[in-house]
Amino acid sequence: MGAHIRELKPQDRDDVAEALGCCGAFTDEEVVVALELFDADGREGYRLFGAEIGGRICGYVCVGRAALTESSWYLYWLCVHPAAQRQGVGTALRRDVERFVWAEGGRRLVIETSGRPDYHRARRFYERAGYVSVGLIRDFYRSGDDCVVYAKQLIQDDHESQPAT
Amino acid sequence: MGAHIRELKPQDRDDVAEALGCCGAFTDEEVVVALELFDADGREGYRLFGAEIGGRICGYVCVGRAALTESSWYLYWLCVHPAAQRQGVGTALRRDVERFVWAEGGRRLVIETSGRPDYHRARRFYERAGYVSVGLIRDFYRSGDDCVVYAKQLIQDDHESQPAT
Repeated sequence: MGAHIRELKPQDRDDVAEALGCCGAFTDEEVVVALELFDADGREGYRLFGAEIGGRICGYVCVGRAALTESSWYLYWLCVHPAAQRQGVGTALRRDVERFVWAEGGRRLVIETSGRPDYHRARRFYERAGYVSVGLIRDFYRSGDDCVVYAKQLIQDDHESQPAT
Repeated sequence: MGAHIRELKPQDRDDVAEALGCCGAFTDEEVVVALELFDADGREGYRLFGAEIGGRICGYVCVGRAALTESSWYLYWLCVHPAAQRQGVGTALRRDVERFVWAEGGRRLVIETSGRPDYHRARRFYERAGYVSVGLIRDFYRSGDDCVVYAKQLIQDDHESQPAT
């Protein structure tokens, strides 16, 4: 516990790369794309927030406005370093980013994730947080690797405290 | 009938803008985004094809590879000028772009479109062409304007003839 959620800075890039590489959920290509989003923080609608423990970033989340929508956002990425997992860091990141999105006028978050068995924990994480499965695209990522689409309608009661920024 | 499907050139921009503006399906903001994709043709993974009748482009389609997938593509945009509708132009564009995607190694197309009543004809167009509704994100575009996600698994028999390029 005790993670401090804050905006990411360019000097956090190594910590983010390490968390992405170590967490085991992402392919090399996915890590490259995730770091492109890190580099795009604040531009092209992407916003990233990190969880800091002991001066190092141990996890982060990336969201962005959905183009051509009034108040929908995507949660593109949420990653916690294995050494910091099961300490509530993911939940702190999720809660904080939902508050941020709410404060920006966002009213729902959409997540696309894998239907693979090894993503079961990730899916349970979102389901327990109120995300509802609203779509399933068979073999989307590759044969046998479906895309599960989750959406959560944000409600004011959940976001009364201060946003991350 | 008799539309010739071909790659778009920069000088087709006015025809494309007119088709987008006249077809009545798109907001001003959507037209701006669609023209950004026109300007991005060939870059960032976007590919556009137009339907030419009598030397003018009367409709076009825009597709792109889905990042981090092995063989999934998005169909972002398909628009036919009202004066050219109900002549098979949309079907010619769809068929040709499916052949193109197949030839590029794509094996499925995903379309996100509106669930609004005035998009009924568009949804029927895709459903008749074998696109299956695989997701529904309530209020995605704005309150009362859902996102319907369609997917079609491409099969070889449909794409034996030559691709557009």
